[in-house]
Amino acid sequence: MQHGSEPAAGDSQILLVQCPDAKGLVHQITGVLFRHGLNIIRNEEFVDAEHAQFFMRTEFVGTVEAKSIVDELRAHSPSHSQIELKPRRKKGIVVMATKEPHCVGDILLRHAYGELNAELRAVVSNHSTLESLVQRFDVPFHYVPHDGKSREAHEDEIFAILQSYRPEYVVLAKFMRCLTRRVVDPLANRIINIHHSFLPAFVGANPYKQAYQRGVKIIGATAHFVTEQLDDGPIIAQNVTTVDHTHDAAAMARAGREIEKFVLARALRLVFDDRVFVWRNKTVVFES
Amino acid sequence: MQHGSEPAAGDSQILLVQCPDAKGLVHQITGVLFRHGLNIIRNEEFVDAEHAQFFMRTEFVGTVEAKSIVDELRAHSPSHSQIELKPRRKKGIVVMATKEPHCVGDILLRHAYGELNAELRAVVSNHSTLESLVQRFDVPFHYVPHDGKSREAHEDEIFAILQSYRPEYVVLAKFMRCLTRRVVDPLANRIINIHHSFLPAFVGANPYKQAYQRGVKIIGATAHFVTEQLDDGPIIAQNVTTVDHTHDAAAMARAGREIEKFVLARALRLVFDDRVFVWRNKTVVFES
Amino acid sequence: MQHGSEPAAGDSQILLVQCPDAKGLVHQITGVLFRHGLNIIRNEEFVDAEHAQFFMRTEFVGTVEAKSIVDELRAHSPSHSQIELKPRRKKGIVVMATKEPHCVGDILLRHAYGELNAELRAVVSNHSTLESLVQRFDVPFHYVPHDGKSREAHEDEIFAILQSYRPEYVVLAKFMRCLTRRVVDPLANRIINIHHSFLPAFVGANPYKQAYQRGVKIIGATAHFVTEQLDDGPIIAQNVTTVDHTHDAAAMARAGREIEKFVLARALRLVFDDRVFVWRNKTVVFES
Amino acid sequence: MQHGSEPAAGDSQILLVQCPDAKGLVHQITGVLFRHGLNIIRNEEFVDAEHAQFFMRTEFVGTVEAKSIVDELRAHSPSHSQIELKPRRKKGIVVMATKEPHCVGDILLRHAYGELNAELRAVVSNHSTLESLVQRFDVPFHYVPHDGKSREAHEDEIFAILQSYRPEYVVLAKFMRCLTRRVVDPLANRIINIHHSFLPAFVGANPYKQAYQRGVKIIGATAHFVTEQLDDGPIIAQNVTTVDHTHDAAAMARAGREIEKFVLARALRLVFDDRVFVWRNKTVVFES
Repeated sequence: MQHGSEPAAGDSQILLVQCPDAKGLVHQITGVLFRHGLNIIRNEEFVDAEHAQFFMRTEFVGTVEAKSIVDELRAHSPSHSQIELKPRRKKGIVVMATKEPHCVGDILLRHAYGELNAELRAVVSNHSTLESLVQRFDVPFHYVPHDGKSREAHEDEIFAILQSYRPEYVVLAKFMRCLTRRVVDPLANRIINIHHSFLPAFVGANPYKQAYQRGVKIIGATAHFVTEQLDDGPIIAQNVTTVDHTHDAAAMARAGREIEKFVLARALRLVFDDRVFVWRNKTVVFES
Repeated sequence: MQHGSEPAAGDSQILLVQCPDAKGLVHQITGVLFRHGLNIIRNEEFVDAEHAQFFMRTEFVGTVEAKSIVDELRAHSPSHSQIELKPRRKKGIVVMATKEPHCVGDILLRHAYGELNAELRAVVSNHSTLESLVQRFDVPFHYVPHDGKSREAHEDEIFAILQSYRPEYVVLAKFMRCLTRRVVDPLANRIINIHHSFLPAFVGANPYKQAYQRGVKIIGATAHFVTEQLDDGPIIAQNVTTVDHTHDAAAMARAGREIEKFVLARALRLVFDDRVFVWRNKTVVFES
Repeated sequence: MQHGSEPAAGDSQILLVQCPDAKGLVHQITGVLFRHGLNIIRNEEFVDAEHAQFFMRTEFVGTVEAKSIVDELRAHSPSHSQIELKPRRKKGIVVMATKEPHCVGDILLRHAYGELNAELRAVVSNHSTLESLVQRFDVPFHYVPHDGKSREAHEDEIFAILQSYRPEYVVLAKFMRCLTRRVVDPLANRIINIHHSFLPAFVGANPYKQAYQRGVKIIGATAHFVTEQLDDGPIIAQNVTTVDHTHDAAAMARAGREIEKFVLARALRLVFDDRVFVWRNKTVVFES
Repeated sequence: MQHGSEPAAGDSQILLVQCPDAKGLVHQITGVLFRHGLNIIRNEEFVDAEHAQFFMRTEFVGTVEAKSIVDELRAHSPSHSQIELKPRRKKGIVVMATKEPHCVGDILLRHAYGELNAELRAVVSNHSTLESLVQRFDVPFHYVPHDGKSREAHEDEIFAILQSYRPEYVVLAKFMRCLTRRVVDPLANRIINIHHSFLPAFVGANPYKQAYQRGVKIIGATAHFVTEQLDDGPIIAQNVTTVDHTHDAAAMARAGREIEKFVLARALRLVFDDRVFVWRNKTVVFES
C-alpha cells in the first residue's frame, strides 16, 4: 500500500466487524478490501476467548461504494455479524444537562474550536441555568422543565426534541435524572453518560459525600453507555484523581468535576473515532 | 535556625500532636521547642473543621531529653491530647503473609538494601509456601498451619509469636485470613493491610473476577489500618492501574499485584516516616 | 480555636512569610497571630536546608487590620523578610494569547462559572483569531498586531494595555512571542507561562516535532514564572501524558494541548490560592 | 475459530512481520495462517505513514512447523521483510549491573516467582557489591573488575562471559559503564538499558542533581535499546513520578529508583512478550 499519492489518513474510513468467531475471518474480510483495491493502514483484532466473539476495527484508504462492500462482507460473514462502514465524518450529537456547567462547557469549547469530532446540534436541559452559556456558542438550547408534568410526559417531550435532531449519539453531560426504557431502548448503545464516581464504588446519590465520609485517597469518574439499569451500563472510560484529608466533600466535588470533564472528553473521543464495541455488558475499546 | 553546624536532617526528630483544637496551640507547642533550643525544619498543621480536631507534625533538630519535653508539652495541652516524640530510628515490624510472594518479596528486598525504614524481625504465615524465599534473606520464618486448630487456637498461636518480637507494626502482606478482636484490639492502628481492590469497590473475595465481570477500565489497591470490620479500616494510601478488554481475570490479578506492591510500599513509607495520624475512621497524612 | 461561631474557611486569610532562617520563627510569628486572637486552621512551614531559607504559609480565621499585623510581624522578623497578608479575594488578571484557543477557552470557561479564583479583566493578543471566542464571554479583547512595528514599540503598546488593567498576575496562555526585560522586570514573579514541553526536554520551537522524531513515549507541559531567560524561569507545575507510535507530530500536539490546559489550570489554582513561593530559580509550593 | 478444544492462549505463538508496505499484506499473511489451519486470536497491524513501513503482530493457536511457515511467508512477502515466529517460551537473559540493588533485586524476585517471562542465566557486574544478593537467588554471579585493564580488555572479558550464556537479551539494570560497538553491534536491538532520567531531559551524569538544581516537579526514567550513541537508542517505555521542594537530590534519587524499577519491569514485559518492533531510532509497541 504505497502512500505516495494516497489520500491522507484524514480521509480514511473505518470498518467495524463484530461476530461469532470462525476460522479465517481476518483473511476473508481483508480479502474483500484487497479485491476492491483498498489499503489497510491500521488493523486491530481481538477474540473474546470466554464467549468466542470476534471484534475487528480496520482503518483503510481508497475509494469504495459503501453499500456494495458491506453487502459483500455480509455474504462472507457468519450469521449475527454486525458490520459497519464508518466514513470519517463528524457524528451528529445532542447534549443533555441539568445545572452544572463544567462538562457542557468543555464540550461547547471543543466543538467551537473543532476538536470534538462531532457536530453539536442542541443542548436539552430540565433547568434553564445553562441557557446563557450555551447560547454564547450559538447552539440551540431547549429548556424542558419537569414541573407539573408526569415523568412520562416529560420524557415524551424530551424524546420528541431529541428525535427532531436525529442525533447519532446523545451525551448526558451531568443530566441528573434517570431515563426510562422509553428513551433508552430506541437509543441503545448511543447514549453516553458521565457518572460522578469510580463505579462500582459509591453508586447512587452524593458520591462525594460518601467518599469524604469513607476517607478515600482517590476519587474517580466513569463514562458509560446508558442502559435501563442505573449506573450499570457498559463502561467506556474511567480515571481517578488523588484527594487527601484537606478535601472536604465540597473540595472532593471540585476535584471530581475536573476528572468528570476529563473522562467524558476521552470517552467521546473514543466513541466518535469509532473505537468502541459494545458486547454484553462490556466494551471492547481499540485505543489510539 | 542556622544549619551550618547542625545535625543533618537525618538526625532530626518528629513530634506528633493530635488533640481537640484550641487557641494558640501552634504558638504554645513551638514555644516549648524554642525554649529547649530546638530548631524546626518542617512543620505541618491541619485542623479538621468538622470535628475541631488539631493535628501537627513537627520535624526538628537539636538535642533534647524526650521524656522531659513530652511532659512539658502535655502540661501545655488540652486534655485528650496524644503527644508522641519519635526518634529517627527504624520501626520494628513483623510481616504476615499466606502464599503470594510479590508483597513479601518487595518488603524483603527493600529491607535488604536499607530502603524500608524498618527492621524486619520475622515473617509469619499460615502456609509454608514462602519459607524458602524468606530464608534467602536470613529472616526468621514461622509457619503456623491452621489445620486441625480452632480459629481461636490458631490466632492465639500467631499472637504469641507476634508478641515475642515486640513489633511496633504488623504488616499484612497478602495475609488471606481475617483477624479477630483478640489480635486487632491490642494492636490498634498498628496493623497495616494491603487490600486487593480499590475500596470501597469490590469488597470481599475475588475482586479481580468481579472487576473482570463488570468490565472496569481501572483496578486499584488500598492500604489501610486493620479494624475488626473487614475492609473497613482507615485508608492510608490508594492507587490504580489501567486495564482493558484484553485483560481476563488472571491478567487483572497480575496487574493488581503490581499496584498492590506499589501501594503497600508507599503506605509503609508514610507510616514508618511518622506521617500518618488516625482519627475516627480516617487518616490525616502529611506527605513527603 | 473553636469553630462554632467562627467564619468559614472561605473567609480565612493567608499569611506568607519568607526570610532567612532563624531560631524560634514559627513560635514568634504564631505568637503575633495569637495575641491578635486569630485562629490558625492550617500551617505549613519548610526550611530549605541548602540555603537556610525559611518559608511559611499560615491560613487563619478572625478579624484583623492587615497593616498593623504586618508591621508587627516585620518588627519580629529578620531583615530581608518578605511578609504578605493575602485576603481571600479573587486575583485580578490579564491573559495574553496568540492563536490557539484551548488554554484561553479553559480560562474563560472557569472564569464564567466561578472556578478560577480570579477576575479576568482582559485578553490581549498579537492576532485577532481569538476575538470572537473571548467576546462570547463578555471579556475585553485587545488585538495588538506587531506588523510594521519595532519589537520595542509593540511591547510598549502591550505593556501600556497591561498596566491599564493593573493586574496582579499576567497569564501567557499560549502567547507565542518572547517578552523582554521591559515587560518582565516590572512584573517579576507575576507572569505565568505554559510551555509546550516537559522542560528541560525539547526547549525551543516545535517541541512536538522534536518529540515525534525522538520517539518518546510520554510528552508533558510545564507552567513556570517568566524570566528574561526563555524557558528557564521557576517551575510551578508539570505533568505528562502518554503517547505511542500511532501519534504523529500532529497527534502529539493534540495530546499536548490537553496536558497544557491541565497543567496551566493547576498552576493558576496554586498561584491564586497563594500557595507558591519563588526562591532563586525554584518554587516552594504548599499544595492542597 | 472455535475455542472449545483449542489450546489455551498460553500455548499461542506470535508472528512478527515488519516490511515495506505493499497492497494486500494483511490478507496474504493471514491467508498463509488460514491454509495451515491456524486460528488468530489477536492481531495488530500498523503502517508508519511517513516511511510506508508495515508492522504486524499476530497471536494464533494451532500446531505448525515453524520453519515451513516462515519460509512460505517469506515467499509471499516483499524483499527486506523481517519475519519471526516466536514460540511462547521464556527468553534467555543475562543481567549486567554495577552497585545499585533495586533493579537487579526486582528482576531476581520476579524471576524467582515466575513473573518475568525470562530465564535469568547470570548476573555480570564490574563490582562485587551485589554478589550476595544475587547468590541468595541461586543465580550465577560474575564479578569482572575493570581495575588495571584497558577498556578493550575489560569489554572482551565481559563479552566472552555474555556469549557463554547465549542470551537472547542482555539487560543493563543500572550498569554504569558505556558499552562500545564491540559489544553493542553483535547484540543490536537485544540490549535493554534503564536510564535514570526522562530522556531527552538531563542526559549524562547526575541527572537527579541536575533535576534538583532546575527545580523540576516531575522526574522520570526511560528504558531503551542500547546503541553506540549514549542515551540515544530507541525508547521502549517511559514513566514519571512527582517530586517537590522537599526533595533534595538524594530524595529525588530515591524517588527515581522507584520509577526506574517500574519502567524497566514494564519494558522487559513488553519485549519478552514480543510486543516491540525496532524501526530506525524508534519503537512500535503493540501493548497489552
